[in-house]
Amino acid sequence: MKDYIEVDEWKIIEEGFNPHHNKVSESIFSLGNGRMGQRANFEEAYSGETLQGNYIAGVYYPDKTRVGWWKNGYPEYFAKVLNAANWVGIDIHIENEQLDLAKCEVITFRRELNMQAGYLKRNFTAKTASGKIVEVEAIRFCSMVDDEAGAIKYTITPLNFSESLTITPFIDGDVVNKDSNYDEKFWDEIKKESWNDGGFLQMRTKKTGFEVATGMLISVLQNNAPVKLNTQAVTKEKYIAAKFKLQTTEGQSITIIKYAANLSSQNYAAADLLIKLKETLVRISKKGFEAMLQEQAAAWAEKWKMNDIIIEGDVSAQQAIRFNIFQLNQTYTGEDDRLNIGPKGFTGEKYGGSTYWDTEAYCVPFYLSTADQKVTKNLLLYRYKQLGKAIENAKLLGFNNGAALYPMVTMDGTECHNEWEITFEEIHRNGAIAYAIFNYVRYTADEAYLADYGLEVLIAIARFWSQRVNWSADKQQYVMLGVTGPNEYENNVNNNWYTSTLATWCMKYTMEVVAMVKTADSAKYAALVAKISFKEAEETARFKDIVAKMYYPYDGKQQVFLQQDGYLDKEQILVKDLPAVDRPINQKWSWDRILRSCYIKQADVLQGIYFFEDQYDLETIRRNFDFYEPRTVHESSLSPCVHAILAAKLGDEARAYEFYLRTARLDLDDYNNDTEDGCHITSMAGTWMSVIEGFGGMRVIDGKLSFQPFLPAKWQSFSFHIGFRGTILNIKVSKNGVQIKNLSGTETSVLVYDKEQTVKANDELLVEA
Amino acid sequence: MKDYIEVDEWKIIEEGFNPHHNKVSESIFSLGNGRMGQRANFEEAYSGETLQGNYIAGVYYPDKTRVGWWKNGYPEYFAKVLNAANWVGIDIHIENEQLDLAKCEVITFRRELNMQAGYLKRNFTAKTASGKIVEVEAIRFCSMVDDEAGAIKYTITPLNFSESLTITPFIDGDVVNKDSNYDEKFWDEIKKESWNDGGFLQMRTKKTGFEVATGMLISVLQNNAPVKLNTQAVTKEKYIAAKFKLQTTEGQSITIIKYAANLSSQNYAAADLLIKLKETLVRISKKGFEAMLQEQAAAWAEKWKMNDIIIEGDVSAQQAIRFNIFQLNQTYTGEDDRLNIGPKGFTGEKYGGSTYWDTEAYCVPFYLSTADQKVTKNLLLYRYKQLGKAIENAKLLGFNNGAALYPMVTMDGTECHNEWEITFEEIHRNGAIAYAIFNYVRYTADEAYLADYGLEVLIAIARFWSQRVNWSADKQQYVMLGVTGPNEYENNVNNNWYTSTLATWCMKYTMEVVAMVKTADSAKYAALVAKISFKEAEETARFKDIVAKMYYPYDGKQQVFLQQDGYLDKEQILVKDLPAVDRPINQKWSWDRILRSCYIKQADVLQGIYFFEDQYDLETIRRNFDFYEPRTVHESSLSPCVHAILAAKLGDEARAYEFYLRTARLDLDDYNNDTEDGCHITSMAGTWMSVIEGFGGMRVIDGKLSFQPFLPAKWQSFSFHIGFRGTILNIKVSKNGVQIKNLSGTETSVLVYDKEQTVKANDELLVEA
Repeated sequence: MKDYIEVDEWKIIEEGFNPHHNKVSESIFSLGNGRMGQRANFEEAYSGETLQGNYIAGVYYPDKTRVGWWKNGYPEYFAKVLNAANWVGIDIHIENEQLDLAKCEVITFRRELNMQAGYLKRNFTAKTASGKIVEVEAIRFCSMVDDEAGAIKYTITPLNFSESLTITPFIDGDVVNKDSNYDEKFWDEIKKESWNDGGFLQMRTKKTGFEVATGMLISVLQNNAPVKLNTQAVTKEKYIAAKFKLQTTEGQSITIIKYAANLSSQNYAAADLLIKLKETLVRISKKGFEAMLQEQAAAWAEKWKMNDIIIEGDVSAQQAIRFNIFQLNQTYTGEDDRLNIGPKGFTGEKYGGSTYWDTEAYCVPFYLSTADQKVTKNLLLYRYKQLGKAIENAKLLGFNNGAALYPMVTMDGTECHNEWEITFEEIHRNGAIAYAIFNYVRYTADEAYLADYGLEVLIAIARFWSQRVNWSADKQQYVMLGVTGPNEYENNVNNNWYTSTLATWCMKYTMEVVAMVKTADSAKYAALVAKISFKEAEETARFKDIVAKMYYPYDGKQQVFLQQDGYLDKEQILVKDLPAVDRPINQKWSWDRILRSCYIKQADVLQGIYFFEDQYDLETIRRNFDFYEPRTVHESSLSPCVHAILAAKLGDEARAYEFYLRTARLDLDDYNNDTEDGCHITSMAGTWMSVIEGFGGMRVIDGKLSFQPFLPAKWQSFSFHIGFRGTILNIKVSKNGVQIKNLSGTETSVLVYDKEQTVKANDELLVEA
Repeated sequence: MKDYIEVDEWKIIEEGFNPHHNKVSESIFSLGNGRMGQRANFEEAYSGETLQGNYIAGVYYPDKTRVGWWKNGYPEYFAKVLNAANWVGIDIHIENEQLDLAKCEVITFRRELNMQAGYLKRNFTAKTASGKIVEVEAIRFCSMVDDEAGAIKYTITPLNFSESLTITPFIDGDVVNKDSNYDEKFWDEIKKESWNDGGFLQMRTKKTGFEVATGMLISVLQNNAPVKLNTQAVTKEKYIAAKFKLQTTEGQSITIIKYAANLSSQNYAAADLLIKLKETLVRISKKGFEAMLQEQAAAWAEKWKMNDIIIEGDVSAQQAIRFNIFQLNQTYTGEDDRLNIGPKGFTGEKYGGSTYWDTEAYCVPFYLSTADQKVTKNLLLYRYKQLGKAIENAKLLGFNNGAALYPMVTMDGTECHNEWEITFEEIHRNGAIAYAIFNYVRYTADEAYLADYGLEVLIAIARFWSQRVNWSADKQQYVMLGVTGPNEYENNVNNNWYTSTLATWCMKYTMEVVAMVKTADSAKYAALVAKISFKEAEETARFKDIVAKMYYPYDGKQQVFLQQDGYLDKEQILVKDLPAVDRPINQKWSWDRILRSCYIKQADVLQGIYFFEDQYDLETIRRNFDFYEPRTVHESSLSPCVHAILAAKLGDEARAYEFYLRTARLDLDDYNNDTEDGCHITSMAGTWMSVIEGFGGMRVIDGKLSFQPFLPAKWQSFSFHIGFRGTILNIKVSKNGVQIKNLSGTETSVLVYDKEQTVKANDELLVEA
């Protein structure tokens, strides 16, 4: 837990330089535009603690798996997002002395992430070992408009000397992944050029063969007047630079503008990369830094219009929720259905930058409400395109007839995780992928998606479940053995209630969609049946039989769903009665002790109740919440949001707010001492859910938005934007009541506290408190 | 499965050279004397496939653990037996051409392990690339009399040339472990010397700081006449050699005798190693090769007198059982209570050469019957001495009050395994250690052991169990959650019948021993109580309560003990109905599929029934055998012996023989295609058990040996030696009946088919068939 970030409504601010915070700040102040991103590393050299990181979405490397004990079925490779060429570097020498904040007296230092306008600004004054004082301002961004481009404006002013500066803007492709299994380097150099005003480097990933061309163009101003460049080309292996020397005058600034672009063979023929790169560099440099920066601000303004949340009366909460929304938008823009949302986004490389079920369970609701529906559709298409690999994956595990098991972690559709209890057993992820389809269609009413793509995925998933259960002669019911639920503090359990519930729901929903598509588009249905050899009568008969005869563990005495068979055999000491010295248990206890305990890492039964809320009456929800909440340690950042939403549903406003607080400033305050590895991007969507579905009580009911808001006691008001089926609404919850603004040109109606309210186009109304 | 070893009663013979068999043969023809051992690598250079291996018992290295995903509680280090200096090497150059069978035409080749006399002999004739033909005979052994010494007699005869030979006997310490986690070398050189007639190398292991001095003395004969040596010293890093050149004459042999010794700082002050090494080398060289070889044969004759099994009518079985007995005796001689029995002995480095519960469960019965009781006592003392570390290990996992959890795998008492489902959960090993104490005392009547050592271990183990169970409020019984039984095809199950049964047995037996020791030696008892703060009343009350209220899964319908909770929920397809293409399942199925299946890797419930046979009536045993046997895939080499013994008990002679066959020639026929990694030493004890406890039906009943023998249909007779409480018996089972010879000077009585038979000193009697 740290507390050094200054509170501001629109900015993230670090004032003063503390080298021990640097890796945390590098994560927090990260930049991204969905296509590429980077940690907030310094432009000039820095020999202190740092994790250098530049990443390009979708460019990965299948690192050879490393395990202690191999188990059959483990994937041979673990795809990880690649640390790519560093394009931010500008090396500065004052005479022969390198500017390096680790070796300077840092007199002033300020780092500022402007979330409203989408850029990072850093200002410092520093005195070198030899006593030279310089003032620096560096502004940079990854363009949301030209998503292959970024730009830096780096201004340095000598404050107490007039000597020559040697300035070396460079591109360095000689990078490593921190988590490389065998300390290998993953890039080969293909070509490079150094020009008078820049240069480029084209690299190819080993094995996967992605080619990425990274280039820069530079222009320099002295005392605000253009300088005619006379650079010296520097090339090393996987490195190019344009080095130049300038005589400086005390008090007169030198500004280096560095235009950079990253083009990948995902989007161009490898042979065309150089020419396209040059075009991009010329285009953006012609546009100019200031124009790019303005475009950037305009693009962000547009984003905020769709998805800002305004909190009055709590600047810290305001900053935090905007930070979450900002990072989610930096991570994924929905332009490209080959991309997805890594748990660390572009802010670090932990977890390999790959796709988890977090996307479907936590991020989809965020993008559904805050972005055009095509964004979520692209997330769905990402999985649709990987269906073949999910079927292959299931085949490797012994399934057949087109059954699909989506991977626990993936980049391109192949499984990338290798703990047997998760890789092979945490199969509920498969259900989340079906649930996301359901959620998308419920929200958007885009039923065409089902016929075009959704049903094919649903049948493959339903086929998996139908093979994964087995008939228990003993119970005379279907059972699901050997699974790990969302609560990863249980491994290899039998009949996890959540997984079994989700599995039968998948089969039911699949049958519903079969019926729908058959009616709506019989030609497409027939084509699909032929494509995947779907034996409707026979297969749905099996689905129906399983749905009818599935076993779900239940405790009749306490009338709660049981997380799994045998859960009540555990010692039932509540979390509140655990000594503080034992927490967090994942740091204090050995793994077996955690497994034997009744403690729950993240919502499990409650995740199911959250998903299928409308199937349970309030008393059932309350009983299960009251049973499971006191046993939940929330040692996953994905846990509190579900509890917040359910507490709100149950009218427990104080607890709902308490759960929200646990993740609201997770990274800004480095709550778990791990932000240096990167920000918890997918958890940020969970915080958003706590506000919108928790405090706002938002649901989709029969094709309408419904709200059951309450105002957290500490806040004066909160308001949020929601996009829904072509309309944009602004909902403001204050002591006066719930104000609904319709920002669209068509009338719409919503439910507020279960009562229908119709709001005319571009009008508003207040439902009084 | 291979079939190239020639059948012989006393010898293991490989005739003709097949390079693809070489690594397998290197394992099979391994030599050892309990203190040191080695694979059957060639003396001269060999550039073909080989696993070079020389090992010194108890000299290990804690290699840094390598896992994919770290779990709390994993040990940081994995101790492994070290590949040590190679002392067998004799490099031969004919002029400038190195003798290397991989580069020769091998005209004749024979490798022979003489199990009766305890040496390895290799003869070959080979033609080099340049056409030189040589004949070689190499005889070598690790001395059972001087267990720090070995010797080689290497005779080379030029058959078609008279040129100079350059001969370089050497010691090479620049060795690696095949399974090193980070490709490190584990030895540092300390000192070395090269003498005219030999030299030595002293090395120290990194971290553990073991020092080992390896030295050689050589003498040379030409045409059987001594040669005055004029050697050239060769030293390199971690290498010394004495190189010499001799002019040869076609048809005249040159014999190099290499006396070698390995002394370790386990047994001497490091500073004294050199002087002691020189003493040893001088002593053995004075004794001379032939005298050493005679002593070796005499020592083995003595061993065979105690433990030979003679099978008439089946030479293949005869060879196999002797091979097993031979390897067990090469691996462990019981001289040193710091040593134990690695699953590969000195024949390879897989499994790190460490100690498993195999020792207590499978090897103890072998050594009890075939060696002096001090041998087994030393195996017990090994664990006694490691009690402190077992208590520490349990503490790491959250246990207290002196509870001990012995490690799954260990060298010096610290845990060396890192799969959570085994390291933390396969805790039944703790019970096997208690069972071995019981077994030892039952066999030897050495009750003093209990007061001196046994009870302290038993209380620590009972304390562990009493903390490892928990009260299930739901069941109103004690349960044991999150365990892995001997059947490792189930992980993290609840209430494994075997583990729970063993746990309560441990508590009961501990209470019995408490009562015994208290009566027999109240002073020792009082001292122990004080030493370990044993609160007898309170702690035994807890033990009693658990024993009284323990839950064991049971199926009332089929009247069988259930392997664990939920076992009957599995799909019950029997092994015989599994398609051949699916076997072995550990190669064909993914891990989760194995876990979900009903298939049993090795005896689990049946292991418990084997241990506590006298607690169950024959019908109970039959029901459980008939239920579990058809579900057992025997994919552990430790499995068939228990089934063989139980089948014999149930009168199913054909099946008993069938189970015995599965492991009898496991390594000789390379049954599982893995003998190249080393021989399955601990399984060999299981094969011995199949014969003695299975076919011989041997048990200890009320302090007497009891036999219920039958003769396998293929055999004419089998006979075996058994040592029991100071007497040696020879039991011969033939068509005539059971002949009992008493080879000792005191009368003894045994039970044969439940009837007491008294055999006078040095007399015999026949119980007719």
